[in-house]
Amino acid sequence: MPNITVELLSGRTPDQRREFVAAVTEAAVDILKARRESVRIVYWEIEKSDVANGGIMESDK
Amino acid sequence: MPNITVELLSGRTPDQRREFVAAVTEAAVDILKARRESVRIVYWEIEKSDVANGGIMESDK
Amino acid sequence: MPNITVELLSGRTPDQRREFVAAVTEAAVDILKARRESVRIVYWEIEKSDVANGGIMESDK
Amino acid sequence: MPNITVELLSGRTPDQRREFVAAVTEAAVDILKARRESVRIVYWEIEKSDVANGGIMESDK
Amino acid sequence: MPNITVELLSGRTPDQRREFVAAVTEAAVDILKARRESVRIVYWEIEKSDVANGGIMESDK
Amino acid sequence: MPNITVELLSGRTPDQRREFVAAVTEAAVDILKARRESVRIVYWEIEKSDVANGGIMESDK
Repeated sequence: MPNITVELLSGRTPDQRREFVAAVTEAAVDILKARRESVRIVYWEIEKSDVANGGIMESDK
Repeated sequence: MPNITVELLSGRTPDQRREFVAAVTEAAVDILKARRESVRIVYWEIEKSDVANGGIMESDK
Repeated sequence: MPNITVELLSGRTPDQRREFVAAVTEAAVDILKARRESVRIVYWEIEKSDVANGGIMESDK
Repeated sequence: MPNITVELLSGRTPDQRREFVAAVTEAAVDILKARRESVRIVYWEIEKSDVANGGIMESDK
Repeated sequence: MPNITVELLSGRTPDQRREFVAAVTEAAVDILKARRESVRIVYWEIEKSDVANGGIMESDK
Repeated sequence: MPNITVELLSGRTPDQRREFVAAVTEAAVDILKARRESVRIVYWEIEKSDVANGGIMESDK
């Protein structure tokens, strides 16, 4: 713990994803006092054709 | 808000998906008094080989 | 199916919640051609002290 | 109910997945006194490139 | 991994919950060849007033 | 987007929670190039009596 889920649009590079989990884990250790090895982060990539905001699919905008 | 997640079997057409998010957003605005632009809907498509009901995979039925 | 999750801020009345699930279920039957009895909807109520947008807790705004 | 979600790394065979949902459903019926037909289980397969533990992507280990 | 989420109606005893996670973990180790210590299970208890099936809140049935 | 869910054990102070969402949002803006106002973070607090690791409820350890 914490167990963190990150829903994001596809298109981020592997390096951005690496850097982001490192930064979030660092913050969890520093601020939430989590043990580093129990910080778990999962990415769920979403396509624009799977999300709507305001009633309109993102892929239609 | 609301933030709505719709798990559904694959096979719906893009038009069905468009119409459904429009209808749900309309209902959120009318009934829940949500601000239209903050209604967020995400589809998670599932295959029959990823769901079991009653202990049997849907793809085996 | 579909299996629908609705994260929303607390404060809706039981009647609003009833009406909303009825409307969403109707839309799932009409538009997605779901069988009415397999439309499942779950509400997850959230407090403003559990959500942040733009880096600031909603309860601090 | 129960509605069970199983996040797991890809690589399990269809037979392992079949056997596992059968066993979990059995346990839900026996122990939780669930009705067999209302035990629902969904698999979400994850790739190693989508999970980090301890701040490092599993695909980098 | 696996990371398992169990949404269930409230009302199960602590002993039922204990026995169920033990059985599911056993099945994950035996069938999915998971390492016992990495099987994680979380219960999300739901009230009947938070679930609808077929468009009607369970608390209204 | 991203839409981030943080499952964590109860016991963090409001200040820790504030600081953590600020840090995660900062990282999302800097690294993932997210627009600050569309970074959404939700906390789901869990009790030890709702989580098992290795087949044993955390509240029994």
